[in-house]
Amino acid sequence: MNVMRPMPAGQVGRSVPRLEAREKVTGRADYVHNLVVPGMLYTKVFRSTVPHGRIVSIDTSAAEAVEGVYRVVTGEDIRKVVPEPYYGPAFHDQPVLALDKVRHVGEPVAVVLAEDPYVAAEAVQLITAEYEELEPVFDEVEAVTSRAVVHEVLKPAGTFPDLKHLVGRRDTNVALDYQLRRGDVDAAFAAADRVFEHEFRTQQTMHTPLEPMVSLAIPGHESLTIHTASQSPSFVRIEIARLLGWPENRVRVVVPHLGGGFGAKLYIKLEALVACLALLVRRPVKLSLTMEEQFYTISKHASTFRIRSSVKDGKITGRRCEVFWNGGAYADIGPRVTQKSGFTAPGPYDIDNVSIDSYALYTNRPPAGALRGFGIPQLVWAYESHTDLIARELEIDPVEFRRNNILREGREQATGTAMKDAAIEAVLEDIVARMDWSKPFDRGTGPLRRGRGIAIGFKASISPTTSVAIVNVYGDGSSSLYLSTVDMGQGSDTAMAQIVGETLGIETENVKVIHPDTDVTPYDMATLGSRSTFHMGNAVKLAAQHARDQLDALARSLGLPPGTNYGPKDLFKKKYGMQAGNIVGVGSYIPDYKSPDPATGLSDNVTPFWMIGGTGVEIEVDTETGHVRILRMVNAVDCGRPLNPKIVETQLSGAALMQLGFTLFENMEYDNGQVTNASFADYKIPGIHDLPARIENDIVEAEQKSGPYGAKGVGESATFGVSPAIANAIHDAVGVRLTEMPLTPEAVFRAIRAQKG
Amino acid sequence: MNVMRPMPAGQVGRSVPRLEAREKVTGRADYVHNLVVPGMLYTKVFRSTVPHGRIVSIDTSAAEAVEGVYRVVTGEDIRKVVPEPYYGPAFHDQPVLALDKVRHVGEPVAVVLAEDPYVAAEAVQLITAEYEELEPVFDEVEAVTSRAVVHEVLKPAGTFPDLKHLVGRRDTNVALDYQLRRGDVDAAFAAADRVFEHEFRTQQTMHTPLEPMVSLAIPGHESLTIHTASQSPSFVRIEIARLLGWPENRVRVVVPHLGGGFGAKLYIKLEALVACLALLVRRPVKLSLTMEEQFYTISKHASTFRIRSSVKDGKITGRRCEVFWNGGAYADIGPRVTQKSGFTAPGPYDIDNVSIDSYALYTNRPPAGALRGFGIPQLVWAYESHTDLIARELEIDPVEFRRNNILREGREQATGTAMKDAAIEAVLEDIVARMDWSKPFDRGTGPLRRGRGIAIGFKASISPTTSVAIVNVYGDGSSSLYLSTVDMGQGSDTAMAQIVGETLGIETENVKVIHPDTDVTPYDMATLGSRSTFHMGNAVKLAAQHARDQLDALARSLGLPPGTNYGPKDLFKKKYGMQAGNIVGVGSYIPDYKSPDPATGLSDNVTPFWMIGGTGVEIEVDTETGHVRILRMVNAVDCGRPLNPKIVETQLSGAALMQLGFTLFENMEYDNGQVTNASFADYKIPGIHDLPARIENDIVEAEQKSGPYGAKGVGESATFGVSPAIANAIHDAVGVRLTEMPLTPEAVFRAIRAQKG
Repeated sequence: MNVMRPMPAGQVGRSVPRLEAREKVTGRADYVHNLVVPGMLYTKVFRSTVPHGRIVSIDTSAAEAVEGVYRVVTGEDIRKVVPEPYYGPAFHDQPVLALDKVRHVGEPVAVVLAEDPYVAAEAVQLITAEYEELEPVFDEVEAVTSRAVVHEVLKPAGTFPDLKHLVGRRDTNVALDYQLRRGDVDAAFAAADRVFEHEFRTQQTMHTPLEPMVSLAIPGHESLTIHTASQSPSFVRIEIARLLGWPENRVRVVVPHLGGGFGAKLYIKLEALVACLALLVRRPVKLSLTMEEQFYTISKHASTFRIRSSVKDGKITGRRCEVFWNGGAYADIGPRVTQKSGFTAPGPYDIDNVSIDSYALYTNRPPAGALRGFGIPQLVWAYESHTDLIARELEIDPVEFRRNNILREGREQATGTAMKDAAIEAVLEDIVARMDWSKPFDRGTGPLRRGRGIAIGFKASISPTTSVAIVNVYGDGSSSLYLSTVDMGQGSDTAMAQIVGETLGIETENVKVIHPDTDVTPYDMATLGSRSTFHMGNAVKLAAQHARDQLDALARSLGLPPGTNYGPKDLFKKKYGMQAGNIVGVGSYIPDYKSPDPATGLSDNVTPFWMIGGTGVEIEVDTETGHVRILRMVNAVDCGRPLNPKIVETQLSGAALMQLGFTLFENMEYDNGQVTNASFADYKIPGIHDLPARIENDIVEAEQKSGPYGAKGVGESATFGVSPAIANAIHDAVGVRLTEMPLTPEAVFRAIRAQKG
Repeated sequence: MNVMRPMPAGQVGRSVPRLEAREKVTGRADYVHNLVVPGMLYTKVFRSTVPHGRIVSIDTSAAEAVEGVYRVVTGEDIRKVVPEPYYGPAFHDQPVLALDKVRHVGEPVAVVLAEDPYVAAEAVQLITAEYEELEPVFDEVEAVTSRAVVHEVLKPAGTFPDLKHLVGRRDTNVALDYQLRRGDVDAAFAAADRVFEHEFRTQQTMHTPLEPMVSLAIPGHESLTIHTASQSPSFVRIEIARLLGWPENRVRVVVPHLGGGFGAKLYIKLEALVACLALLVRRPVKLSLTMEEQFYTISKHASTFRIRSSVKDGKITGRRCEVFWNGGAYADIGPRVTQKSGFTAPGPYDIDNVSIDSYALYTNRPPAGALRGFGIPQLVWAYESHTDLIARELEIDPVEFRRNNILREGREQATGTAMKDAAIEAVLEDIVARMDWSKPFDRGTGPLRRGRGIAIGFKASISPTTSVAIVNVYGDGSSSLYLSTVDMGQGSDTAMAQIVGETLGIETENVKVIHPDTDVTPYDMATLGSRSTFHMGNAVKLAAQHARDQLDALARSLGLPPGTNYGPKDLFKKKYGMQAGNIVGVGSYIPDYKSPDPATGLSDNVTPFWMIGGTGVEIEVDTETGHVRILRMVNAVDCGRPLNPKIVETQLSGAALMQLGFTLFENMEYDNGQVTNASFADYKIPGIHDLPARIENDIVEAEQKSGPYGAKGVGESATFGVSPAIANAIHDAVGVRLTEMPLTPEAVFRAIRAQKG
């Protein structure tokens, strides 16, 4: 019957303008930074100046004497509210404020609370602390064997069965060692025509959300409300409730608009601190970071990847991967990156014999977590540079070499999972076609040389737990969608509203999206890893279908014959004699997948869907300066069927340009653990002059059959290929191979000079 | 299977302490009066000083010149936002600010907006208006034939089919004439032994919520948020959306704690005005009334009831009821009171021949609406005084006379609806037994005389449209209940949480109730007429059952055998490997009933349930002063099975004592349309010295089979019998009959003197 379909469908696949765009550009959108509540105290954090040390004493007396300072709080005060004040999504290793030890420069040691933020900022400078310095370790490979131990005892969160074997492990910086063995790598190496081995490194970088982290906690009657710039309100609620020993429903987490996240605003960042402070002083407490402080809060893993491959008759027969992830002082989600991305370390190639060791390491740097790609860009950087090097050595065209080895539909990936709805080949061929790869390419002469490069990558989805959505259809047919997915700029509000519109047969613009508020919107695991379109999208579709089923039932109960062209408004009016009532639809989606077996690293259903992305570039290298100019960039992805092609396209540009910054210049520089360029004056992110002269974004024809209307996630896919494509193009242009990011002019110039020398 | 029932049940029927009690007594509960938002303007209303007049001019210049005044707004300004600015639940007759005419003293004519409330209050005194005065009408009976016409044309809301015949009717003050004819009254009168006729009157009184009305509108991006002290957030959203021509989902109505309502805070009160002002000036606008201003905003209908009954062999054979309801200048819900209560005007007696005419009248008094009982106390006052007078005339014991005529289970009420789950007889007998009615009663001697009286009444439920509830069970088994029912002191939060607790098998205290917010909580018609326990209670039970069904399904999917003692927390943990996820249950309840036929006034299913209440009193009259002292008061009700006996008991005390004030002294006194006692200094409400020396509240053994766990509403039932019981007791004590409320010492004294004279 068709009573609920008065509108033509076609909401999905339409480039609906962002629902929140006008609100944002007119300055009406709410952000936590703008939020002021009566009685609120401002705070400023006093941070460690040493990378590793035992706290001997903290002197807060001068700060407390400043007029207008309400209180100065240290780690010992926090214990009055929470006796065991350690948090973390994988390990309960991070103290709310430092206790006994500090483990990185910039670690929060004390907090000044004041009615005026400037008073707090002034007073914090009067705090002094004395440390007994300990030997630090900064390098992820050194951390494996270093005498310097960051955490004396490992404290994995008890809830993860696959981390249980680590509980209580002592005197090691290895937080997690993920291992996968498939086939017989040694035999493959022995039988090969050639064996290639390289080591690649990536640097530590920053997420750089332009809205710095901010949280505000308001104590209530036996309850607590936290307004926070977070990508994971449901997680924050549960983790704060755990810390406090409260039921979930006493903790309310509210997230308004978010000014970017990229993985920085996941799990607990400032929330535990403001929660403890608010309960300690029984007043609302707000903490807003500066851009500089973000450098000390969360970052992207530096990494070292040792990769060794055997080739026989042009086919890769074996591959050994050893990946070292520099997790910094606290694990955050690093162990999950190590494992979940680890199992794709051999790349999207069909290799019978594989060995993977992926290590999460503690070091005395600021913590590292997930950053747009969940470790995949670090891996692709290595395996696609390696692939290019092999092809060059074998004098096979790099595209041809990839075609020979690519992981095709139905074939098993390293974990043993057969590939499904993964258009790897289509992505490769799309880029190749776009770039006219087979035609001659002008490599230039004189100081300006040109080269081209290509790279492809893939990623499994990180999908624990579930997503829940509610669709409420009102008496006039307008509706609201309740979900805890955070629209941080990726356009999820609009895409989810399109799913409601398509399913209910109403205009997307007539769907209001209610932003995350754990007292209002149902559970969602978190907004991360390009999971929302698939997971929440499926939940939203189910919720809208549930509402539609009820509207259909209402129509039948009113005796309307099937096919009657009645909209919700008419149905309600007919039922109640007036504009009244509503219909509530609920949808819950639990993905079908199986985590790798902790013992073998294998799984026959390791992910609900695969993300595929690739990039081709044409570049120009100034051999006199080392400067690399991107003449053309082609990004292609498999995102299933795009819900909103325009938003997908901007996701591709955004992801590729973000990765471009990491590739060419972004780098957290250190002097004995102190970041020396923690400001936008010194830490460069891409500007308008760094953009490719020409950028093309392509969505390949594909369908994720298990996705909502055939769609799947796309927020990270265009990051995958950027770095190795550029390195491969530099090699193509000037014959030098850079194995360490970033590919700065200085690095390129030095490599050219070394080659000449 | 029993996996979801780890707790013993027994949440229902337990006197759970109010969930919000601690929050209220510690001063942490939020009220709209406390709400301050940045950029907010305060307002003060300039009101009409004449009861009926044409607006000639309004001079706002002096007010506008006051420093700090932001703007002064009149009705013509409102038209810039809303071209047709008329609202109302039954008639669209009430302008946001007066246009062309004023119709009662105190009607809003202009508003001063200022950053400071004191500036607004000062400036409003400088506004002047010139009126061409028109002849007013104040009395409800005179209004039927008066030349003074309050509204030139009737404007019933187009949505009510039973009001359609009134659209466009001109030059009448009769807003609605409800008519019911059953049997042949004239024939009954002709064949009777005796015919009795009396006229009873009630006075206009005030709801007196101790939190005066207050609303705050905040304009957003193409949206509007209204924080308001309202009993009907869903109605406010729809009516404001209608006025603005917006979809519902652009209007958000938020109701925090409410400091009493009693029917005063229903439908639109200040919301339309603050909404228009906020959109006009694009800033948040708050309007808080004083207690005095409430007298001019909404009140309880004064009424005149002409009742005529025929009796043959001790049985009432016919009854004619003519009821005139003084609706004041704007209809509000008056026409519904006229109709919905009108059809019970013959009382809970088994009478074959009935004629009812119930008239809603416009007059030039402040508007009247629903007040705890929806017109029933006015009717019971008349029919139970009348019953007592008949019994006395016939020299039959008034209890015996009632027993002879009472409407028994299965017998048809006037509308033709057969009585069901209506313990009228049980209520009567409970009071009789408590009062030892058959034993001799000492009537005193000298100046202090004693008497006793009894009265019973009943009420149909006002039940248009629907109620919807959502129950969210979190990862740790704690849960939240989302509903738009307003807890205004009646304890609905606690009762509804008990239904969730009972159904899910968890502690009531573990259920958090989310207060009404139309962006959060689903539709509920309104909180009025004791409907919530039954309607919302049923919706909440369905929602909790829906959640429980899903939890049971989860248990089955995990392979747990039936009977396994798993709680929700364990289920989630088993499913997800950690504390995560949630289950959302939805329940929607549409009552089964049929409005009276507009042509005949009849219906064979006129109400989903009946409320029954009665009161017996023993009083002492000081014949030298006329003062009446209540020695003992016995209230008994049928509320089905009580969900929370303690809350039911306080509802009984509260209702009876409120009605005691209306009975003995509350009265809005007038001088040419001007209320002369519009303050608590002059308008007396019951104080501690007015309370009965002894008060007993009884819940009779009963069950509402269609109600949640056998329960039904009880908020009004103890108002029904209070007034006639006291009048009957005065008659019993000193032999005088008062037919007009209130029964002040002066009135009693004058009646005694007249009798002696």
